[in-house]
Amino acid sequence: MKAIVAYGPHDLRIEERPDPGAPGAGEVRLRVQSGGICGSDLHYYHHGGFGTIRIKEPMILGHEASGIVEELGAGVSGLAIGDRVAINPSRPCENCEYCRRDMRNHCLDMVFSGSAMRFPHVEGMFREVLVVPAAQAVPVGAATDTGLAALAEPFAVCLHAARQAGPLLGASVLVSGCGPIGCLAVAAARRAGAAHITACDVVGEPLETARKLGADTVIDLGSDRSGLDALKADKGRIDVVFECSGNPAAVTTAVECVRPRGRLVAVGNGGPVEFPLASLVAKEIEMVGSFRFDTEFALAADLVARHLVDLAPLISHRMPAGRAVEAFDLASDRSQAMKVQLDLTDWTAAT
Amino acid sequence: MKAIVAYGPHDLRIEERPDPGAPGAGEVRLRVQSGGICGSDLHYYHHGGFGTIRIKEPMILGHEASGIVEELGAGVSGLAIGDRVAINPSRPCENCEYCRRDMRNHCLDMVFSGSAMRFPHVEGMFREVLVVPAAQAVPVGAATDTGLAALAEPFAVCLHAARQAGPLLGASVLVSGCGPIGCLAVAAARRAGAAHITACDVVGEPLETARKLGADTVIDLGSDRSGLDALKADKGRIDVVFECSGNPAAVTTAVECVRPRGRLVAVGNGGPVEFPLASLVAKEIEMVGSFRFDTEFALAADLVARHLVDLAPLISHRMPAGRAVEAFDLASDRSQAMKVQLDLTDWTAAT
Amino acid sequence: MKAIVAYGPHDLRIEERPDPGAPGAGEVRLRVQSGGICGSDLHYYHHGGFGTIRIKEPMILGHEASGIVEELGAGVSGLAIGDRVAINPSRPCENCEYCRRDMRNHCLDMVFSGSAMRFPHVEGMFREVLVVPAAQAVPVGAATDTGLAALAEPFAVCLHAARQAGPLLGASVLVSGCGPIGCLAVAAARRAGAAHITACDVVGEPLETARKLGADTVIDLGSDRSGLDALKADKGRIDVVFECSGNPAAVTTAVECVRPRGRLVAVGNGGPVEFPLASLVAKEIEMVGSFRFDTEFALAADLVARHLVDLAPLISHRMPAGRAVEAFDLASDRSQAMKVQLDLTDWTAAT
Amino acid sequence: MKAIVAYGPHDLRIEERPDPGAPGAGEVRLRVQSGGICGSDLHYYHHGGFGTIRIKEPMILGHEASGIVEELGAGVSGLAIGDRVAINPSRPCENCEYCRRDMRNHCLDMVFSGSAMRFPHVEGMFREVLVVPAAQAVPVGAATDTGLAALAEPFAVCLHAARQAGPLLGASVLVSGCGPIGCLAVAAARRAGAAHITACDVVGEPLETARKLGADTVIDLGSDRSGLDALKADKGRIDVVFECSGNPAAVTTAVECVRPRGRLVAVGNGGPVEFPLASLVAKEIEMVGSFRFDTEFALAADLVARHLVDLAPLISHRMPAGRAVEAFDLASDRSQAMKVQLDLTDWTAAT
Repeated sequence: MKAIVAYGPHDLRIEERPDPGAPGAGEVRLRVQSGGICGSDLHYYHHGGFGTIRIKEPMILGHEASGIVEELGAGVSGLAIGDRVAINPSRPCENCEYCRRDMRNHCLDMVFSGSAMRFPHVEGMFREVLVVPAAQAVPVGAATDTGLAALAEPFAVCLHAARQAGPLLGASVLVSGCGPIGCLAVAAARRAGAAHITACDVVGEPLETARKLGADTVIDLGSDRSGLDALKADKGRIDVVFECSGNPAAVTTAVECVRPRGRLVAVGNGGPVEFPLASLVAKEIEMVGSFRFDTEFALAADLVARHLVDLAPLISHRMPAGRAVEAFDLASDRSQAMKVQLDLTDWTAAT
Repeated sequence: MKAIVAYGPHDLRIEERPDPGAPGAGEVRLRVQSGGICGSDLHYYHHGGFGTIRIKEPMILGHEASGIVEELGAGVSGLAIGDRVAINPSRPCENCEYCRRDMRNHCLDMVFSGSAMRFPHVEGMFREVLVVPAAQAVPVGAATDTGLAALAEPFAVCLHAARQAGPLLGASVLVSGCGPIGCLAVAAARRAGAAHITACDVVGEPLETARKLGADTVIDLGSDRSGLDALKADKGRIDVVFECSGNPAAVTTAVECVRPRGRLVAVGNGGPVEFPLASLVAKEIEMVGSFRFDTEFALAADLVARHLVDLAPLISHRMPAGRAVEAFDLASDRSQAMKVQLDLTDWTAAT
Repeated sequence: MKAIVAYGPHDLRIEERPDPGAPGAGEVRLRVQSGGICGSDLHYYHHGGFGTIRIKEPMILGHEASGIVEELGAGVSGLAIGDRVAINPSRPCENCEYCRRDMRNHCLDMVFSGSAMRFPHVEGMFREVLVVPAAQAVPVGAATDTGLAALAEPFAVCLHAARQAGPLLGASVLVSGCGPIGCLAVAAARRAGAAHITACDVVGEPLETARKLGADTVIDLGSDRSGLDALKADKGRIDVVFECSGNPAAVTTAVECVRPRGRLVAVGNGGPVEFPLASLVAKEIEMVGSFRFDTEFALAADLVARHLVDLAPLISHRMPAGRAVEAFDLASDRSQAMKVQLDLTDWTAAT
Repeated sequence: MKAIVAYGPHDLRIEERPDPGAPGAGEVRLRVQSGGICGSDLHYYHHGGFGTIRIKEPMILGHEASGIVEELGAGVSGLAIGDRVAINPSRPCENCEYCRRDMRNHCLDMVFSGSAMRFPHVEGMFREVLVVPAAQAVPVGAATDTGLAALAEPFAVCLHAARQAGPLLGASVLVSGCGPIGCLAVAAARRAGAAHITACDVVGEPLETARKLGADTVIDLGSDRSGLDALKADKGRIDVVFECSGNPAAVTTAVECVRPRGRLVAVGNGGPVEFPLASLVAKEIEMVGSFRFDTEFALAADLVARHLVDLAPLISHRMPAGRAVEAFDLASDRSQAMKVQLDLTDWTAAT
C-alpha cells in the first residue's frame, strides 16, 4: 500500500507501507478516494509542525478524505460494500470527563488521524487503504462526488463554528480570512440563515470563491481597506464575525466591526496576539473559540450528500497522489490555489 | 456649595460651586451623603485620565454616592423628602438604537456622572447638593447606612458582570484581582449561587476582604502561585472566571484555569494585552466583556437595602470630604485601603 | 377609494371609503397591490372574530399586503415614488415597558392593521390606497413580484417562530399543520439550516406545498398515522416541533415526538387544550409561544427580495379584489386553496 | 435487616430482609440513618402507585436517605469508614444515547431506588443497611445532621429546577404549591439570587415554612386570592414561576402571572391539565419541565454540608422507622406535616 509520509520540513515521501489487512469486528476496510490538503498538512510540510506540535517520527499525513467500502468487519450494520463514505478522522475515547459531558471534541484522549499531537503520532489518511471503526465511515450516497465527500471534514469544522456562533438567522456576518476554512464558514453561515455576509482577505484571489460560496460582499483588504468603514460605524455593525485567519491585525479589525454584545467566533489558530481587551470590555463582545467538530461531521456529510450546500467551487485542483509534492507546493500558493485535493487512487508520478 | 474638582494630575481642589437650586419637573434635589472613591477617580487624580479619556476642563469627580431627598420637583412620585437614596450616575438617552434594543449601557449618547468621556465633561457627585431626574434616585429605606447605599454603584457593576457570566448556580468561580470590583464580584457570585469561589491577587492584604465577602479559598500570587496548579489541571477546572485586574498576565492565567467551554468575564480594563488566542480556540472558551450596568443598579440597591448581601467589610475607611486629597492618597495604597468613602456632609479640612 | 369591509359573520362588503389624501410628515401614500387572506381574516368573515376578539363595528380587513409608493410625506428618506414595498401592519408604541425592553411584539399599546383587538378597531389594508408611517413600508426592489412581497407578513411570523426555536442548524424538525403558516414555517426552518424537516397534516392536499417549500418528508395523518411512529421512538426523535395547527390532538402528538429537552414552538392559536403536562415534565420539554414578529418583518422582505427563499409555491390563487367574497370562500377550503391573494388594483366584480 | 415494604394500597409492612452483606468492588456498605417520606412514597402507600406506574410486587420504599459508611469495597477511594453521606438514589447507565449526550436524568435504562417504574422494581432505602456503588454515597462532613443530609435528594430536584429556570439573579419568582418541593424551590431560588419570591398555596399552614426558607411574600389562596392581582397586572409581573403543585388551576394561574417571555418551570406532576395555550402563545411564555436531577445531587449535598443553605425548617417531624405507618399517615396531612423523616436506626414500634 502506498502512502504520503512527512519526515520533516520539506521532506515528503511516497512510501510503500504494509496493507492494513482485513477489518476487525466493528471495523470497515476502505479504498481511499480523495484527500484534501489542509493548512495543518502544509504546516507539517513546511515547518515540521506548528506551535508545540512537532513531527517526531515519520507520519502519514491527511485528515480530509473519502473512501469506498471494500470489506465489512463482523457485526457492522448500516454500511454495504461499495458505499461511498466521508471518513471522520476523530475518535474520542467516549469515557473521559469531557466525552461524558457531551464535549467529545475536548476529549482528554482523542485519536485524530494525521496529527502529531500524540506520540506515537496517529497516522493519517493519504494512503490507498484504511481500516477504521465503522462509526467513522459516514455514507454519502452513490451520487455524491468523492471530492465533495472529502470536504465533509473541513465543512464540519465550519458547521461547528456556526453552532458556536449561536443563532445566525437574519444575522449580519463578517468572515475574516478566505482560505478554505473562511470560504466554508461563508457556506455554513449562509446555510444557517445569515442575512448578509461580508468576506474579507488581504489577498484578492480567494474572494471570488467566497462569493461563489455565498458571500454577498467581498473586501480585498490588500487593495483598499475603506470597505470596512461602514462595518465599524456606530460602535460596529456586524452581529457575528468568524475570524478564520488567526492574523493578529485581523483580530483587532474583527473587534472593531462587531457590534456591542455581538459575537466573535475565533476559528483561526495562531500564536499569541496583541488583543484590544478594553474594546471587548466596553462593547461587551463575546469572543468564543471553535475547535474541530463533534456531531457536525455527520451533518456535513448529510448536507453535502443531499445537495443542501454546493461546495464544488471550493475545489480548485485535483491531482494524482503520486504528484504529492507538487500538490503541496501548489496548495501553499494562495494566489493560485484554494483547496487542492489528491486522487488517492492514482499514484502516477509527474513525468 | 462645596465640591471636589479635578484640574489635572495631582491637582485636586475643594471649591465653592453655585448651588444647583430647586429641582425642575421630574427632578429631585439631594443632600449628598457618602461618596466612594473608585479606580477611575484615582486615574483622573494621578494621571488626568486613562486611555483616550482625558480631563480637558476642571471636573467634579465622583460616581458612587448616596443622598437624602431634600426637595421634590413637580410630578415626582414614589419618593419623599427625607428618603435615603442610592444615586444612579448613568442616564442613557432612551432613544438611540442601543437604548431601543434594551442595551442602555451601550447608549450612543450616555450621560454618566463624573466622567470625562464627553466634552463638556459630565460633573460628578462629590459635592454637597445634587439635582437629578427622580429616576436616578433609588430609595434604600431608612435603616440602610448611607455608606452601604453608596456601594450600590460598584455592586451594580458586579451584578451586571454576574449576569454576563450566565447561570452561576453551582459554578466553580475564580475571581482574579481583589480590588473593590473583584471583592464585589465575589459577593455577586456568592449571591448568585456559585458553589466554590477562589479569589487571587498579587497583593495579600485585599484577600482577607475577599474572604469576608464570600471567597472560599484565596491565593496570594505574590507569595506562592502553586495554588493555581489545581485550577489548571486537566485543561482547567474553573467554570467562570471574573477577570477584574486588567493585568495582561492575569488574563493568561485566567485562560489557563478556565475549563473547556467555560466562561471568562472581562471586567477589568486596561491597555492591549498579549492574548493566548490558540488556547481560547482549543478550549472553546467564551470570553465576554462586562461594561457598567443597566437594571442592575436598582437590583444592587434592593439587595443592599434588604440585607440580602452584606457589603460592609468592603468599606475600609470613611473620611471627611474636606480631607479629599488625603483620602485619594490613601485609596491609592492597596496594602492599606480597600474602599475609601468620603463623608460629603463634612468638609472639615485636616488640621 | 374602494375597500373590503367586514360587518359581521358572512357579511363582507365592497364599499366606497374616503381617500386618505396626502401623506403627512414622515408618512407615505401607497397604491395597494396584493393582499393575502389570512386565517384571522377568515375568522372575522365566518364568525365575526375569535376568542374574545369580536368585530364591534365595520372594519376593513387585511394585514398581508404590498404596495407601490405614490407620494412621500415631508422628511421621508430611503423611499422613492414607484418603489415596491411590503407593508408592515404593526406599529408598536415604542414607549411602553415592553417596547423599551426590546419586546415590541408585546407592546401594551400596539396598533395592528385589520385587527379588532382594540376599539375603535384598526382598519386593514384590503383597499386601494393607504397612508402609513414610512417605517412601515419596506422596499423589496423593482424585480420582486408584488404577490411575493405580500407574503412578507406571514413569513415574518414564521421567521419569528424560527427564532423562538433557537438554533436550527442541523436540527430535526416537525411542522404540525400545513396551512400557510405551517408551510412558511417549513421554509423558515429550511432557511435556518434544519437538517431534516417532516411536515404533517390531517388533510393531504397542503402537504404537496409543504414539500415544495422544503419539507423532506410529509405525513398525511388523515390516511395513515403510522409515519409518526419512528418520530416517537426512544422518548422522541424530533429536536424542534413547530405546532401550527392549534389542534388539541396535535399538541399531544407534538409532545410525543419531541425528544427529551427538545423544543416545541407553539405558533397556532386556539382555545384551551387538554395538555399532557406529565410528559412535558418527564421529558423536560421546552414549550414556547411565538406571537407575531418584530424585526423579522424587514428580514422577511429582505430574504424574499434577494431570492434567498422561494415562496412562490405558497400562492395558490390570485383573484380580483372585486370578487372578495368568492375569494374568501375559496380560501376557506383547505382541499382547494393554500394562500389566496387579492389583486387590490382590480375591483371587477364577478359576472 | 429490617425494611419498610409496600405491598399495595394501605398495606405497608415492616419486614425482615436478608442482609446485603459485604460490598463488592467499587461499592460501599452503609448503615442507613434518616429517610424522608416523599410524595411518590405517599402515592405508593395510598394508591399503590400513580399514573401508569404501579406496584406489581412488594417493594422497599424510600429514595431520600442518608447513611454512615460501614465498609468499603475493593478499590474505593475518597470515602472512609464512619463518613456521613447523602445517598443518591439514581444510577444512570452511562451508555445510552441520553447519558452520552449529558442528559443522564433521561437515561433509557435508569435504576432509581424505591421506584416501581421498572419491573422487577428497584428496592428503596427505608431499611437498616444498604450496599451501593461508591459514587452514590456523597460525603457531607461529620458536622452535618443526618436529617439534613437526607434532604439532599429533594433539594437536588429543586436545584435542577432552578437550573431549568435559567439565570435567576434579580428575578421575580412565584412558587406555586408549598409542599416540600415548593418550599425547597423557594430555598433554591433564594440561593440562586432571586430578588423577590412569592409563595402561594391553597392551604395556609405550609406557607410559614416557605417564609422560613426564603419567601418574601406568601399568599394563602384558600382564604384570599386577591394577592395574585398585582402579579397579573400588565400582562404579568413574574419572571419565573416554579409550578410545584401539578394542580390544573394552578397552571392557569401561573400562565396569568408570568410576564411576556417569562419562564414557567413545571416541577409538579399530575394528569392531563386543561391548558390556556392561547395565552402561552400570545405572551410567548417558555414552559419547561424539570425531572429529577443529575449533577445537582452533589451540589445539594455540598450546599447543605457547607451551610450555604439552611433547610432545617423543612423537617417538621422525625419518627422511629418502627412507627412507619403512623409516619406515613402524618405525612399525608398537609395541615400538620411538612417533611416527615424516619429514623432508620430506630425500629421501635408504637406501644
